[in-house]
Amino acid sequence: MENCKAAKEVSLEELKIRVSEFGRVRGWQQYHSPRNLLLALVGEVGELSEIFQWKGEVERGLPNWSAEEKERLEEEISDVLLYLIQLADVCGLDLGKAALTKIFKNSLKYPLLPNPAP
Amino acid sequence: MENCKAAKEVSLEELKIRVSEFGRVRGWQQYHSPRNLLLALVGEVGELSEIFQWKGEVERGLPNWSAEEKERLEEEISDVLLYLIQLADVCGLDLGKAALTKIFKNSLKYPLLPNPAP
Amino acid sequence: MENCKAAKEVSLEELKIRVSEFGRVRGWQQYHSPRNLLLALVGEVGELSEIFQWKGEVERGLPNWSAEEKERLEEEISDVLLYLIQLADVCGLDLGKAALTKIFKNSLKYPLLPNPAP
Amino acid sequence: MENCKAAKEVSLEELKIRVSEFGRVRGWQQYHSPRNLLLALVGEVGELSEIFQWKGEVERGLPNWSAEEKERLEEEISDVLLYLIQLADVCGLDLGKAALTKIFKNSLKYPLLPNPAP
Repeated sequence: MENCKAAKEVSLEELKIRVSEFGRVRGWQQYHSPRNLLLALVGEVGELSEIFQWKGEVERGLPNWSAEEKERLEEEISDVLLYLIQLADVCGLDLGKAALTKIFKNSLKYPLLPNPAP
Repeated sequence: MENCKAAKEVSLEELKIRVSEFGRVRGWQQYHSPRNLLLALVGEVGELSEIFQWKGEVERGLPNWSAEEKERLEEEISDVLLYLIQLADVCGLDLGKAALTKIFKNSLKYPLLPNPAP
Repeated sequence: MENCKAAKEVSLEELKIRVSEFGRVRGWQQYHSPRNLLLALVGEVGELSEIFQWKGEVERGLPNWSAEEKERLEEEISDVLLYLIQLADVCGLDLGKAALTKIFKNSLKYPLLPNPAP
Repeated sequence: MENCKAAKEVSLEELKIRVSEFGRVRGWQQYHSPRNLLLALVGEVGELSEIFQWKGEVERGLPNWSAEEKERLEEEISDVLLYLIQLADVCGLDLGKAALTKIFKNSLKYPLLPNPAP
Protein backbone atom coordinates (compact mmCIF):
# COMPACT_ATOMS: atom_id res chain seq x y z
CA MET A 1 0.00 0.00 0.00
CA GLU A 2 1.47 3.27 -1.06
CA ASN A 3 0.23 5.15 1.96
CA CYS A 4 1.86 3.23 4.74
CA LYS A 5 5.08 5.22 4.79
CA ALA A 6 3.27 8.40 5.76
CA ALA A 7 0.57 6.69 7.82
CA LYS A 8 2.01 7.97 11.06
CA GLU A 9 0.97 11.46 10.06
CA VAL A 10 -2.39 10.63 8.52
CA SER A 11 -4.85 13.42 9.17
CA LEU A 12 -8.53 13.16 10.05
CA GLU A 13 -9.20 15.28 6.98
CA GLU A 14 -7.47 12.77 4.72
CA LEU A 15 -9.40 9.87 6.21
CA LYS A 16 -12.64 11.81 5.85
CA ILE A 17 -11.99 12.47 2.17
CA ARG A 18 -11.02 8.87 1.46
CA VAL A 19 -13.95 7.28 3.26
CA SER A 20 -16.41 9.78 1.83
CA GLU A 21 -15.16 9.05 -1.69
CA PHE A 22 -15.35 5.32 -0.96
CA GLY A 23 -19.04 5.58 -0.13
CA ARG A 24 -19.81 8.07 -2.90
CA VAL A 25 -18.58 5.92 -5.77
CA ARG A 26 -20.55 2.95 -4.39
CA GLY A 27 -23.78 4.92 -4.04
CA TRP A 28 -23.88 4.39 -0.27
CA GLN A 29 -24.27 8.02 0.77
CA GLN A 30 -28.05 7.69 0.66
CA TYR A 31 -27.78 5.40 3.72
CA HIS A 32 -25.46 7.69 5.65
CA SER A 33 -27.92 9.65 7.74
CA PRO A 34 -26.72 10.69 11.20
CA ARG A 35 -28.64 8.06 13.18
CA ASN A 36 -27.85 5.29 10.70
CA LEU A 37 -24.14 6.04 11.07
CA LEU A 38 -24.48 6.27 14.84
CA LEU A 39 -26.06 2.81 15.03
CA ALA A 40 -23.38 1.46 12.68
CA LEU A 41 -20.80 2.93 15.07
CA VAL A 42 -22.49 1.17 18.01
CA GLY A 43 -22.37 -2.05 16.01
CA GLU A 44 -18.63 -1.71 15.52
CA VAL A 45 -18.06 -0.86 19.19
CA GLY A 46 -19.84 -4.15 19.88
CA GLU A 47 -17.46 -6.03 17.62
CA LEU A 48 -14.52 -4.32 19.30
CA SER A 49 -15.87 -5.38 22.71
CA GLU A 50 -16.27 -8.97 21.57
CA ILE A 51 -12.52 -9.16 21.00
CA PHE A 52 -11.91 -8.30 24.66
CA GLN A 53 -14.93 -9.98 26.26
CA TRP A 54 -13.60 -13.30 27.57
CA LYS A 55 -10.01 -12.26 28.23
CA GLY A 56 -10.12 -10.91 31.77
CA GLU A 57 -7.68 -8.07 32.27
CA VAL A 58 -5.45 -7.42 29.26
CA GLU A 59 -1.86 -6.18 29.48
CA ARG A 60 -0.70 -3.03 27.72
CA GLY A 61 0.93 -3.86 24.40
CA LEU A 62 -1.03 -7.14 24.14
CA PRO A 63 2.08 -9.31 24.72
CA ASN A 64 0.26 -12.64 24.49
CA TRP A 65 -1.98 -11.92 21.53
CA SER A 66 -1.52 -13.70 18.22
CA ALA A 67 -0.88 -11.77 15.01
CA GLU A 68 -4.40 -12.71 13.88
CA GLU A 69 -5.98 -11.30 17.02
CA LYS A 70 -4.01 -8.07 16.68
CA GLU A 71 -5.02 -7.75 13.05
CA ARG A 72 -8.68 -8.24 13.93
CA LEU A 73 -8.33 -5.61 16.64
CA GLU A 74 -6.80 -3.16 14.14
CA GLU A 75 -9.73 -3.76 11.83
CA GLU A 76 -12.41 -3.22 14.46
CA ILE A 77 -10.77 -0.13 15.97
CA SER A 78 -10.51 1.26 12.44
CA ASP A 79 -14.17 0.54 11.73
CA VAL A 80 -15.16 2.53 14.82
CA LEU A 81 -12.89 5.41 13.73
CA LEU A 82 -14.19 5.46 10.17
CA TYR A 83 -17.85 5.57 11.25
CA LEU A 84 -17.03 8.27 13.78
CA ILE A 85 -15.40 10.35 11.04
CA GLN A 86 -18.42 9.84 8.78
CA LEU A 87 -20.85 10.73 11.58
CA ALA A 88 -18.98 13.99 12.23
CA ASP A 89 -18.95 14.65 8.49
CA VAL A 90 -22.69 14.25 7.89
CA CYS A 91 -23.33 16.38 10.96
CA GLY A 92 -21.19 19.12 9.46
CA LEU A 93 -18.60 19.09 12.26
CA ASP A 94 -14.84 19.57 11.98
CA LEU A 95 -13.70 16.59 14.04
CA GLY A 96 -10.03 17.61 14.27
CA LYS A 97 -10.91 21.06 15.53
CA ALA A 98 -13.50 19.60 17.90
CA ALA A 99 -10.94 17.19 19.38
CA LEU A 100 -8.32 19.90 19.91
CA THR A 101 -10.97 22.11 21.51
CA LYS A 102 -12.05 19.26 23.82
CA ILE A 103 -8.48 18.69 25.00
CA PHE A 104 -8.26 22.40 25.74
CA LYS A 105 -11.55 22.33 27.68
CA ASN A 106 -10.35 19.30 29.63
CA SER A 107 -7.21 21.20 30.63
CA LEU A 108 -9.43 23.91 32.14
CA LYS A 109 -11.66 21.35 33.85
CA TYR A 110 -8.74 19.41 35.31
CA PRO A 111 -6.07 22.04 35.97
CA LEU A 112 -2.57 20.94 36.87
CA LEU A 113 -1.93 21.61 40.53
CA PRO A 114 1.35 23.37 41.29
CA ASN A 115 3.88 21.25 43.12
CA PRO A 116 4.01 22.01 46.84
CA ALA A 117 6.96 24.12 47.90
CA PRO A 118 9.84 22.00 49.21
CA MET B 1 -6.64 28.51 20.83
CA GLU B 2 -3.46 28.55 18.83
CA ASN B 3 -4.22 25.27 17.09
CA CYS B 4 -7.43 26.06 15.39
CA LYS B 5 -5.89 27.42 12.24
CA ALA B 6 -4.29 24.10 11.39
CA ALA B 7 -7.03 21.96 12.92
CA LYS B 8 -8.26 20.84 9.54
CA GLU B 9 -5.05 18.94 9.08
CA VAL B 10 -4.69 17.61 12.60
CA SER B 11 -3.15 14.17 12.55
CA LEU B 12 -4.00 11.16 14.69
CA GLU B 13 -0.35 11.17 15.79
CA GLU B 14 -0.63 14.73 17.08
CA LEU B 15 -3.83 13.95 19.00
CA LYS B 16 -2.21 10.84 20.44
CA ILE B 17 0.78 12.81 21.69
CA ARG B 18 -1.37 15.55 23.18
CA VAL B 19 -3.81 13.26 24.97
CA SER B 20 -1.05 10.99 26.20
CA GLU B 21 0.86 13.97 27.62
CA PHE B 22 -2.40 15.22 29.17
CA GLY B 23 -2.84 11.98 31.11
CA ARG B 24 0.85 11.60 31.95
CA VAL B 25 1.25 14.92 33.72
CA ARG B 26 -1.90 14.21 35.75
CA GLY B 27 -0.76 10.73 36.81
CA TRP B 28 -3.69 9.06 35.05
CA GLN B 29 -1.74 6.57 32.97
CA GLN B 30 -2.00 3.99 35.75
CA TYR B 31 -5.75 3.77 35.00
CA HIS B 32 -5.34 3.46 31.25
CA SER B 33 -5.36 -0.30 30.82
CA PRO B 34 -6.92 -1.59 27.59
CA ARG B 35 -10.23 -2.74 29.09
CA ASN B 36 -10.57 0.35 31.28
CA LEU B 37 -10.20 2.54 28.18
CA LEU B 38 -12.59 0.34 26.24
CA LEU B 39 -15.29 0.71 28.90
CA ALA B 40 -14.65 4.46 29.03
CA LEU B 41 -15.15 4.49 25.25
CA VAL B 42 -18.46 2.64 25.65
CA GLY B 43 -19.48 5.21 28.25
CA GLU B 44 -18.82 8.05 25.80
CA VAL B 45 -20.68 6.26 23.00
CA GLY B 46 -23.59 6.15 25.43
CA GLU B 47 -23.40 9.91 25.99
CA LEU B 48 -23.23 10.43 22.23
CA SER B 49 -26.33 8.27 21.79
CA GLU B 50 -28.21 10.22 24.45
CA ILE B 51 -27.91 13.34 22.31
CA PHE B 52 -29.75 11.59 19.48
CA GLN B 53 -32.12 9.37 21.46
CA TRP B 54 -35.43 11.25 21.49
CA LYS B 55 -35.04 13.08 18.18
CA GLY B 56 -36.43 10.64 15.66
CA GLU B 57 -34.65 10.85 12.33
CA VAL B 58 -32.11 13.68 12.14
CA GLU B 59 -31.29 15.63 9.00
CA ARG B 60 -27.76 15.86 7.62
CA GLY B 61 -26.08 19.06 8.75
CA LEU B 62 -28.35 19.30 11.83
CA PRO B 63 -30.27 22.32 10.45
CA ASN B 64 -32.59 22.66 13.45
CA TRP B 65 -30.10 22.14 16.24
CA SER B 66 -29.15 24.93 18.63
CA ALA B 67 -25.55 26.07 18.99
CA GLU B 68 -25.54 24.48 22.46
CA GLU B 69 -26.66 21.11 21.11
CA LYS B 70 -24.01 21.20 18.39
CA GLU B 71 -21.34 22.09 20.91
CA ARG B 72 -22.36 19.21 23.15
CA LEU B 73 -22.26 16.89 20.13
CA GLU B 74 -18.74 18.09 19.26
CA GLU B 75 -17.67 17.35 22.82
CA GLU B 76 -19.10 13.84 22.91
CA ILE B 77 -17.83 12.86 19.46
CA SER B 78 -14.41 14.12 20.54
CA ASP B 79 -14.51 12.12 23.77
CA VAL B 80 -15.17 8.95 21.76
CA LEU B 81 -12.28 9.80 19.42
CA LEU B 82 -9.84 10.56 22.22
CA TYR B 83 -10.56 7.30 24.07
CA LEU B 84 -10.28 5.39 20.80
CA ILE B 85 -6.86 6.95 20.17
CA GLN B 86 -5.76 6.09 23.71
CA LEU B 87 -7.03 2.52 23.40
CA ALA B 88 -5.05 2.04 20.18
CA ASP B 89 -2.02 3.57 21.87
CA VAL B 90 -1.98 1.30 24.94
CA CYS B 91 -2.52 -1.68 22.65
CA GLY B 92 0.57 -0.65 20.67
CA LEU B 93 -1.31 -0.10 17.40
CA ASP B 94 -0.71 2.56 14.76
CA LEU B 95 -4.27 3.80 14.32
CA GLY B 96 -3.63 5.91 11.20
CA LYS B 97 -1.95 3.02 9.43
CA ALA B 98 -4.67 0.64 10.59
CA ALA B 99 -7.41 2.93 9.24
CA LEU B 100 -5.74 3.32 5.84
CA THR B 101 -5.24 -0.45 5.67
CA LYS B 102 -8.91 -1.02 6.54
CA ILE B 103 -10.09 1.28 3.76
CA PHE B 104 -7.85 -0.66 1.38
CA LYS B 105 -9.26 -4.00 2.58
CA ASN B 106 -12.79 -2.64 2.21
CA SER B 107 -12.01 -1.73 -1.41
CA LEU B 108 -11.10 -5.37 -2.05
CA LYS B 109 -14.18 -6.64 -0.22
CA TYR B 110 -16.55 -4.30 -2.06
CA PRO B 111 -15.04 -3.91 -5.53
CA LEU B 112 -16.39 -1.27 -7.86
CA LEU B 113 -18.42 -2.86 -10.59
CA PRO B 114 -17.59 -1.70 -14.11
CA ASN B 115 -20.31 0.32 -15.76
CA PRO B 116 -22.38 -1.68 -18.20
CA ALA B 117 -21.54 -1.08 -21.84
CA PRO B 118 -23.85 1.48 -23.44
CA MET C 1 -40.74 -26.40 23.64
CA GLU C 2 -42.63 -27.19 26.78
CA ASN C 3 -42.25 -23.71 28.21
CA CYS C 4 -43.87 -21.64 25.57
CA LYS C 5 -47.35 -21.87 26.96
CA ALA C 6 -46.39 -20.07 30.14
CA ALA C 7 -43.77 -17.84 28.51
CA LYS C 8 -45.89 -14.78 28.97
CA GLU C 9 -45.38 -15.05 32.69
CA VAL C 10 -41.73 -16.04 32.65
CA SER C 11 -39.92 -14.54 35.63
CA LEU C 12 -36.44 -13.07 35.79
CA GLU C 13 -35.71 -15.64 38.50
CA GLU C 14 -36.59 -18.52 36.19
CA LEU C 15 -34.41 -17.14 33.39
CA LYS C 16 -31.56 -16.62 35.84
CA ILE C 17 -31.75 -20.22 37.03
CA ARG C 18 -31.93 -21.60 33.50
CA VAL C 19 -29.07 -19.56 32.08
CA SER C 20 -26.91 -20.14 35.14
CA GLU C 21 -27.47 -23.89 34.89
CA PHE C 22 -26.73 -23.70 31.16
CA GLY C 23 -23.31 -22.19 31.82
CA ARG C 24 -22.56 -24.37 34.84
CA VAL C 25 -22.94 -27.71 33.08
CA ARG C 26 -20.71 -26.46 30.25
CA GLY C 27 -17.96 -25.24 32.58
CA TRP C 28 -18.37 -21.63 31.43
CA GLN C 29 -18.80 -20.02 34.83
CA GLN C 30 -15.05 -19.47 35.09
CA TYR C 31 -15.39 -16.89 32.28
CA HIS C 32 -18.35 -15.10 33.81
CA SER C 33 -16.63 -12.33 35.72
CA PRO C 34 -18.53 -9.02 35.95
CA ARG C 35 -16.50 -7.14 33.34
CA ASN C 36 -16.37 -10.11 30.96
CA LEU C 37 -20.16 -10.30 31.06
CA LEU C 38 -20.45 -6.53 30.67
CA LEU C 39 -18.32 -6.58 27.51
CA ALA C 40 -20.33 -9.54 26.21
CA LEU C 41 -23.46 -7.46 26.81
CA VAL C 42 -21.95 -4.57 24.86
CA GLY C 43 -21.17 -7.01 22.05
CA GLU C 44 -24.79 -8.10 21.90
CA VAL C 45 -26.06 -4.51 22.00
CA GLY C 46 -23.84 -4.00 18.95
CA GLU C 47 -25.47 -6.91 17.15
CA LEU C 48 -28.89 -5.54 18.07
CA SER C 49 -27.92 -2.15 16.66
CA GLU C 50 -26.71 -3.71 13.42
CA ILE C 51 -30.23 -4.95 12.77
CA PHE C 52 -31.53 -1.38 12.86
CA GLN C 53 -28.54 0.48 11.43
CA TRP C 54 -29.41 1.03 7.75
CA LYS C 55 -33.19 1.17 8.10
CA GLY C 56 -33.88 4.82 8.82
CA GLU C 57 -36.85 5.29 11.13
CA VAL C 58 -38.68 2.05 11.93
CA GLU C 59 -42.42 1.80 12.52
CA ARG C 60 -43.85 0.34 15.73
CA GLY C 61 -44.77 -3.30 15.25
CA LEU C 62 -42.23 -3.70 12.41
CA PRO C 63 -44.95 -4.00 9.74
CA ASN C 64 -42.55 -4.41 6.83
CA TRP C 65 -40.04 -6.78 8.37
CA SER C 66 -39.65 -10.35 7.14
CA ALA C 67 -40.13 -13.30 9.48
CA GLU C 68 -36.38 -13.89 9.30
CA GLU C 69 -35.59 -10.34 10.37
CA LYS C 70 -38.02 -10.56 13.28
CA GLU C 71 -36.53 -13.87 14.38
CA ARG C 72 -33.03 -12.41 14.31
CA LEU C 73 -34.26 -9.45 16.34
CA GLU C 74 -35.81 -11.79 18.92
CA GLU C 75 -32.49 -13.60 19.19
CA GLU C 76 -30.40 -10.47 19.66
CA ILE C 77 -32.78 -8.86 22.16
CA SER C 78 -32.74 -12.14 24.08
CA ASP C 79 -28.95 -12.26 24.08
CA VAL C 80 -28.84 -8.79 25.62
CA LEU C 81 -31.38 -9.83 28.25
CA LEU C 82 -29.58 -13.06 29.13
CA TYR C 83 -26.21 -11.34 29.60
CA LEU C 84 -27.88 -8.63 31.66
CA ILE C 85 -29.42 -11.28 33.92
CA GLN C 86 -26.05 -13.01 34.28
CA LEU C 87 -24.28 -9.73 35.03
CA ALA C 88 -26.78 -8.95 37.79
CA ASP C 89 -26.36 -12.49 39.10
CA VAL C 90 -22.55 -12.47 39.39
CA CYS C 91 -22.78 -9.03 41.02
CA GLY C 92 -25.14 -10.49 43.63
CA LEU C 93 -28.06 -8.24 42.69
CA ASP C 94 -31.77 -9.10 42.64
CA LEU C 95 -32.66 -7.75 39.21
CA GLY C 96 -36.45 -8.03 39.59
CA LYS C 97 -36.40 -6.16 42.87
CA ALA C 98 -33.99 -3.59 41.43
CA ALA C 99 -36.26 -2.98 38.43
CA LEU C 100 -39.39 -2.52 40.58
CA THR C 101 -37.46 -0.17 42.84
CA LYS C 102 -36.25 1.84 39.85
CA ILE C 103 -39.78 2.27 38.52
CA PHE C 104 -40.79 3.50 41.98
CA LYS C 105 -37.87 5.98 42.08
CA ASN C 106 -38.78 7.19 38.61
CA SER C 107 -42.32 7.88 39.79
CA LEU C 108 -40.88 10.15 42.50
CA LYS C 109 -38.50 11.83 40.04
CA TYR C 110 -41.21 12.46 37.45
CA PRO C 111 -44.40 13.02 39.48
CA LEU C 112 -47.72 13.12 37.72
CA LEU C 113 -49.02 16.65 37.58
CA PRO C 114 -52.65 17.09 38.66
CA ASN C 115 -54.96 18.11 35.88
CA PRO C 116 -55.71 21.83 35.86
CA ALA C 117 -59.10 22.76 37.22
CA PRO C 118 -61.68 23.24 34.48
CA MET D 1 -42.57 -0.63 48.63
CA GLU D 2 -45.37 -3.10 48.54
CA ASN D 3 -43.84 -5.15 45.74
CA CYS D 4 -40.57 -6.17 47.27
CA LYS D 5 -41.82 -9.31 48.94
CA ALA D 6 -42.68 -10.93 45.63
CA ALA D 7 -39.89 -9.25 43.66
CA LYS D 8 -37.98 -12.50 43.32
CA GLU D 9 -40.69 -13.80 41.06
CA VAL D 10 -41.36 -10.63 39.10
CA SER D 11 -42.24 -11.47 35.51
CA LEU D 12 -41.20 -9.67 32.33
CA GLU D 13 -44.91 -9.25 31.61
CA GLU D 14 -45.48 -7.42 34.88
CA LEU D 15 -42.53 -5.10 34.27
CA LYS D 16 -43.76 -4.46 30.73
CA ILE D 17 -47.22 -3.47 31.98
CA ARG D 18 -45.84 -1.24 34.72
CA VAL D 19 -43.34 0.59 32.55
CA SER D 20 -45.81 0.96 29.70
CA GLU D 21 -48.39 2.45 32.05
CA PHE D 22 -45.70 4.73 33.51
CA GLY D 23 -44.98 6.20 30.09
CA ARG D 24 -48.62 6.28 29.02
CA VAL D 25 -49.88 8.44 31.86
CA ARG D 26 -47.00 10.87 31.29
CA GLY D 27 -47.65 11.17 27.56
CA TRP D 28 -44.22 9.77 26.69
CA GLN D 29 -45.35 7.03 24.31
CA GLN D 30 -45.08 9.40 21.36
CA TYR D 31 -41.27 9.33 21.85
CA HIS D 32 -41.05 5.55 22.13
CA SER D 33 -40.28 4.58 18.57
CA PRO D 34 -38.04 1.53 18.11
CA ARG D 35 -34.87 3.43 17.23
CA ASN D 36 -35.42 6.07 19.91
CA LEU D 37 -35.70 3.32 22.52
CA LEU D 38 -32.67 1.53 21.09
CA LEU D 39 -30.53 4.66 21.40
CA ALA D 40 -31.86 5.22 24.93
CA LEU D 41 -30.79 1.65 25.70
CA VAL D 42 -27.30 2.35 24.33
CA GLY D 43 -27.18 5.44 26.54
CA GLU D 44 -27.95 3.37 29.62
CA VAL D 45 -25.39 0.71 28.67
CA GLY D 46 -22.92 3.59 28.57
CA GLU D 47 -23.87 4.64 32.09
CA LEU D 48 -23.55 1.03 33.24
CA SER D 49 -20.07 0.85 31.69
CA GLU D 50 -19.00 4.06 33.40
CA ILE D 51 -19.54 2.38 36.77
CA PHE D 52 -17.00 -0.29 35.85
CA GLN D 53 -14.61 1.73 33.71
CA TRP D 54 -11.73 2.63 36.05
CA LYS D 55 -11.93 -0.38 38.35
CA GLY D 56 -9.73 -2.94 36.64
CA GLU D 57 -11.00 -6.48 37.15
CA VAL D 58 -13.97 -6.70 39.52
CA GLU D 59 -14.64 -9.63 41.85
CA ARG D 60 -17.89 -11.56 41.78
CA GLY D 61 -20.28 -10.30 44.44
CA LEU D 62 -18.58 -6.86 44.47
CA PRO D 63 -17.06 -7.41 47.93
CA ASN D 64 -15.31 -4.04 48.11
CA TRP D 65 -18.06 -1.84 46.72
CA SER D 66 -19.84 0.71 48.87
CA ALA D 67 -23.62 0.60 49.36
CA GLU D 68 -23.87 3.73 47.20
CA GLU D 69 -21.96 2.12 44.34
CA LYS D 70 -24.13 -0.99 44.50
CA GLU D 71 -27.29 1.11 44.52
CA ARG D 72 -26.10 3.05 41.47
CA LEU D 73 -25.31 -0.24 39.74
CA GLU D 74 -28.83 -1.55 40.52
CA GLU D 75 -30.29 1.61 39.01
CA GLU D 76 -28.27 1.45 35.80
CA ILE D 77 -28.81 -2.28 35.26
CA SER D 78 -32.53 -1.66 35.77
CA ASP D 79 -32.56 1.20 33.28
CA VAL D 80 -31.05 -1.10 30.65
CA LEU D 81 -33.64 -3.79 31.44
CA LEU D 82 -36.57 -1.37 31.32
CA TYR D 83 -35.58 0.07 27.93
CA LEU D 84 -35.00 -3.44 26.60
CA ILE D 85 -38.51 -4.44 27.71
CA GLN D 86 -39.97 -1.33 26.08
CA LEU D 87 -38.02 -1.93 22.86
CA ALA D 88 -39.38 -5.48 22.65
CA ASP D 89 -42.85 -4.15 23.39
CA VAL D 90 -42.96 -1.51 20.64
CA CYS D 91 -41.55 -4.08 18.22
CA GLY D 92 -44.43 -6.42 19.10
CA LEU D 93 -42.20 -9.18 20.49
CA ASP D 94 -42.86 -11.46 23.46
CA LEU D 95 -39.56 -11.07 25.28
CA GLY D 96 -40.09 -13.90 27.77
CA LYS D 97 -40.92 -16.37 25.03
CA ALA D 98 -38.02 -15.08 22.92
CA ALA D 99 -35.57 -15.57 25.80
CA LEU D 100 -36.74 -19.13 26.52
CA THR D 101 -36.52 -19.91 22.81
CA LYS D 102 -32.98 -18.51 22.65
CA ILE D 103 -31.83 -20.66 25.57
CA PHE D 104 -33.29 -23.65 23.76
CA LYS D 105 -31.49 -22.73 20.52
CA ASN D 106 -28.24 -22.27 22.44
CA SER D 107 -28.61 -25.78 23.85
CA LEU D 108 -28.73 -27.12 20.29
CA LYS D 109 -25.80 -24.96 19.21
CA TYR D 110 -23.64 -25.97 22.17
CA PRO D 111 -24.65 -29.57 22.93
CA LEU D 112 -23.45 -31.18 26.14
CA LEU D 113 -20.76 -33.71 25.39
CA PRO D 114 -21.18 -37.08 27.09
CA ASN D 115 -18.59 -37.81 29.76
CA PRO D 116 -15.83 -40.08 28.53
CA ALA D 117 -16.09 -43.66 29.74
CA PRO D 118 -13.98 -44.28 32.84
